[in-house]
Amino acid sequence: MESNQQPHVVIIGAGFGGLTCAQALRSAPVRITLLDRTNHHLFQPLLYQVAMAGLSPADIASPIRSILRRQSNVTVLLDEAKGIDYERQVVHLTKDELPYDYLVLATGGRTSYFGHDEWEPFAPGLKSLDDAVEIRRRVLLAFEAAEKEKDEARSRELMTFVVVGGGPTGVELAGSIGELTRRVLARDFRTIYPEFARILLLEGGARILPSFTEDLSASAERQLERLGVQVRKNAQVTNIDATGVYLGDVKIPAATVIWAAGVGATAFTQQLQAPLDRGGRVNIQPDLTLPARANVFAIGDMTHLEQDGQPLPGVSPVAMQMGQAVARNIQNALVGKLYEKFRYVDKGSMATIGRHAAIADVAGLKLSGLPAWLAWLGLHLFFLIGFRNRLSALFNWSWMYFTYQRGARLITGGRKD
Amino acid sequence: MESNQQPHVVIIGAGFGGLTCAQALRSAPVRITLLDRTNHHLFQPLLYQVAMAGLSPADIASPIRSILRRQSNVTVLLDEAKGIDYERQVVHLTKDELPYDYLVLATGGRTSYFGHDEWEPFAPGLKSLDDAVEIRRRVLLAFEAAEKEKDEARSRELMTFVVVGGGPTGVELAGSIGELTRRVLARDFRTIYPEFARILLLEGGARILPSFTEDLSASAERQLERLGVQVRKNAQVTNIDATGVYLGDVKIPAATVIWAAGVGATAFTQQLQAPLDRGGRVNIQPDLTLPARANVFAIGDMTHLEQDGQPLPGVSPVAMQMGQAVARNIQNALVGKLYEKFRYVDKGSMATIGRHAAIADVAGLKLSGLPAWLAWLGLHLFFLIGFRNRLSALFNWSWMYFTYQRGARLITGGRKD
Repeated sequence: MESNQQPHVVIIGAGFGGLTCAQALRSAPVRITLLDRTNHHLFQPLLYQVAMAGLSPADIASPIRSILRRQSNVTVLLDEAKGIDYERQVVHLTKDELPYDYLVLATGGRTSYFGHDEWEPFAPGLKSLDDAVEIRRRVLLAFEAAEKEKDEARSRELMTFVVVGGGPTGVELAGSIGELTRRVLARDFRTIYPEFARILLLEGGARILPSFTEDLSASAERQLERLGVQVRKNAQVTNIDATGVYLGDVKIPAATVIWAAGVGATAFTQQLQAPLDRGGRVNIQPDLTLPARANVFAIGDMTHLEQDGQPLPGVSPVAMQMGQAVARNIQNALVGKLYEKFRYVDKGSMATIGRHAAIADVAGLKLSGLPAWLAWLGLHLFFLIGFRNRLSALFNWSWMYFTYQRGARLITGGRKD
Repeated sequence: MESNQQPHVVIIGAGFGGLTCAQALRSAPVRITLLDRTNHHLFQPLLYQVAMAGLSPADIASPIRSILRRQSNVTVLLDEAKGIDYERQVVHLTKDELPYDYLVLATGGRTSYFGHDEWEPFAPGLKSLDDAVEIRRRVLLAFEAAEKEKDEARSRELMTFVVVGGGPTGVELAGSIGELTRRVLARDFRTIYPEFARILLLEGGARILPSFTEDLSASAERQLERLGVQVRKNAQVTNIDATGVYLGDVKIPAATVIWAAGVGATAFTQQLQAPLDRGGRVNIQPDLTLPARANVFAIGDMTHLEQDGQPLPGVSPVAMQMGQAVARNIQNALVGKLYEKFRYVDKGSMATIGRHAAIADVAGLKLSGLPAWLAWLGLHLFFLIGFRNRLSALFNWSWMYFTYQRGARLITGGRKD
């Protein structure tokens, strides 16, 4: 069979779902085009480390072309999907169009402000490398501004950091601000004491990390408090502006606010002419196709699929298993078999808080503190894509571990000459 | 003597000159304030490695606070000098003012377009980390655009890279574009052959690297050509726009142009009410003071000083030796001694072209090729400030050396969601 007559699989998005799907089709008799708006696959679970100056952007990102260099049935394309014409089976790009036989949508998630997009300038979210570098810039600049501030109230405001949202990302961010202030920056300033910075973690519900057991939530809270983070539960944010966060009538003056409370699907799902949930996620069929579109699949954070009455969580293991399932279904279709229904196998979850501080719930085993942290470290290093990144991240971590220094403490961008 | 009655030395700029001066005053009975617009000291000689995706920004930059953490007579301030009031002896900052007893100006250089600032958007220069990341973005994006371009002329334009200026920076940039295309990107694309990219180095004079001997210039040219770089001498650029570079009536169509032809002083010198040279550099006295200002010194790339009838070159050894001389002069003044005249001791110079390719002229010894490259590598690693950066850069270099991979190949910024 002539190669260009093989069925063409177009995958939009090279996150965990899209990349896994492309790799799982390695030996399939198909041509694959993998489309992404950036040139790199991002190891999102460690993005908070870039935001907190522990790792460099290059440590947690690999060029997509490098990852797939040896897989000859894939073409990587740096472009943006603008829409889909289902009748003609083409994806509209910035200039051209791309015909497909099978389409896999894996465009991921983005920060959602629950209808309050006006908060975004004051409380950036953390979804991309550019977000991480911007948050790093704001946190480090707050200390620099406090160092030369003479007004006491303003200085307190500059030394207050509020993280909104008590899920894994919020906990990681708050914990690592604690470490940054207490260990890394402590001796670097002459007029301020970074270790007395005020760090608040606001959670709207009754406990942080609600996807874990109550015991583990409580343990995480104690570990955060040891790092100087104040956890406030049942805290409903009603407004955010340049000067702080409002909880009803109460105002918390703060120069730096980070939003980790909501994730929704990328705006691209609006184009799909398909039913969406409240977060803009597309409701998919159990075989991962869009309703009434047998050759269009959607996977990962952009999708809404329930299993045992609960929506599947927006985490990388779900996206990766979905990517593999789609690859199997396409291969089934090529030999005339029916699609299989997807079933997620939960292998456990963990959240990290700081050095020696984490919680884990893996295979029925509930860990916290040092053992959980070691498990987290090993697993994340193992899954960091690209051997070089793994070595480099290991090097940076060991360095931070033994010296409490952080090498990536650069304030870049945002300044015009 | 009460510490806050000690003389106050204000140093503006934490480049090689300013930082060396602050460190040389380690044991002097003075209070020092070191002011910089960024929070990091930059190892500028390796900036081209960041632009060519060989190193990460954090590998060549150290937080100024960290470098000076243990020197208790220094306060580091992130702010910008807006002007100087010589009568009242204060530096105007963004909001406040800073009184001084001795003032050391070390604000460095910036890219100069010789009166053609309109070329800047089309041909960025390389002076800051932000510049390096921008050039990296343009070079990598050109290949991505070529990969999907169907028009042949436009594709050739995208695959043409022009470096203007045959000094050390231009040679380093052109050589490393050669390596990037031939070794790193070669196998990553499906429709283009990065190894056939056209790389032009334009030099206005009769030979590249004119500060070296003719033999070494010729050797550098041969080494560049081996990496696929075409060197054009006596090439006077008359215009640059979005589609390419003009040499009189001849146009070279090129999507990516990098400007390495001119360095002048930062705009700050305009504020000094002092005589400037054509490049905006301030003419200083042999004792490194400004004319008629006995307590105001200026050093490094922002200055013009002749020695044996030749202006001193704008390189880091000059700036560092000047920084040390100023520290000696201030200490002399404190004990009632006269200032000494500055004399630069040239310990040699080198320029690198690529892997195993360099030239060096050190202590009368003229090296080229592998020996020169090894000398260059050792010396630069030795001088890279901060032990961590040295280790991390060594790691990244070894990795590149053995695998021809580049870890920092990220396209970030410039995209709005």
